[in-house]
Amino acid sequence: MQLIIGNHNYSSWSLRAWLLLRQFDLGFDTLRIALFTPGSAKQIKSFNPAGKVPILLDNDLTIWDSLAIGEYINEQHLFGKGWPADARLRAHARSSCAEMHSGFMALRKAMPMNCRRHVDNFAISVEVQQDIDRINTLWSEALSRSGSEQFLYGNFSIADACYAPVVFRLTGYGVKQPAQLQAYCDRILALPACQEWLALAQQESEVIEEEEV
Amino acid sequence: MQLIIGNHNYSSWSLRAWLLLRQFDLGFDTLRIALFTPGSAKQIKSFNPAGKVPILLDNDLTIWDSLAIGEYINEQHLFGKGWPADARLRAHARSSCAEMHSGFMALRKAMPMNCRRHVDNFAISVEVQQDIDRINTLWSEALSRSGSEQFLYGNFSIADACYAPVVFRLTGYGVKQPAQLQAYCDRILALPACQEWLALAQQESEVIEEEEV
Repeated sequence: MQLIIGNHNYSSWSLRAWLLLRQFDLGFDTLRIALFTPGSAKQIKSFNPAGKVPILLDNDLTIWDSLAIGEYINEQHLFGKGWPADARLRAHARSSCAEMHSGFMALRKAMPMNCRRHVDNFAISVEVQQDIDRINTLWSEALSRSGSEQFLYGNFSIADACYAPVVFRLTGYGVKQPAQLQAYCDRILALPACQEWLALAQQESEVIEEEEV
Repeated sequence: MQLIIGNHNYSSWSLRAWLLLRQFDLGFDTLRIALFTPGSAKQIKSFNPAGKVPILLDNDLTIWDSLAIGEYINEQHLFGKGWPADARLRAHARSSCAEMHSGFMALRKAMPMNCRRHVDNFAISVEVQQDIDRINTLWSEALSRSGSEQFLYGNFSIADACYAPVVFRLTGYGVKQPAQLQAYCDRILALPACQEWLALAQQESEVIEEEEV
């Protein structure tokens, strides 16, 4: 398999797919395309006309969205292990991921993922705080329903990969979390795969001005 | 099952879930909550703190996003028939739906779903035209890969429910489509379930000003 991603530093959608594949120890090559550089848009479109990353190539198959990549990997490579085994938890996990996929616009706009950035006293608007509160409710519910002291729904799942960019954001922008949720964030950050991603982001030199809020 | 939806006239996410359930002839009750009316936000949150429609209640289970509802229905009620049977087409269909779920912002903003609205010569910006072009590429690819002369991937699937609000938009705002894609739109519009939804929208009297572009 080959996974086409954007900048480690900025591309939150890329992180989701990459972390899922890495955490489940699936073999794949990575092709990084630095976003908003000359020719990058054209290069991405040469793989898929949607023109967005990540894109997964598996033999002659192209899957071009992080959530669809998750479902595909779950089905074809993890044989169901990408989601919680319990149907009730699975419905909850899929709802959580779909909510992230289409929502939290205030958070995403005000606090773009930027792995190299570390800020104290970042000013949080009412709208962003509402997004954070909602995420905290959702995470608490997931941990409570699954009785997990590890990941959101017990074992590492697509949902943890989906919310990893939020963990990176909360950390980088110095947002204080309730103890139980901070512990969850710390567990995600401590994953060797996350440490590897963050190190790769450090090595990058490209700067995307509009993501530097 | 109970499906909680917003206004038939405006709520594109509601239409997706409702059409899927109706088209597959699953038994369910509908609770309509007129959006942006006094108490409506609180009422929606009483079912789920995400505060958005649609929400599916199945026994004591709550699924709160149209895409998650699709996967849940596919798994628990349709036993896989919600997606194309072919794994390759299924990966394509899921990518298409995930792209819709997170994207096409220009189209969604400029041409909000408004079932009662019928416009000629609607001015289309460059960004909206790009979204329409991308959707047309995607639909053409789906129809061509599946060799379908009916729905996007052969039999009616979650993907058709997902793109039905786009069909309603293109029709309402008078956007001319290439013949093959217009024929697809016409087939979707001719579904008794779609006609039922449009009739329900006609009967509604609430007006949401910001959706009246």
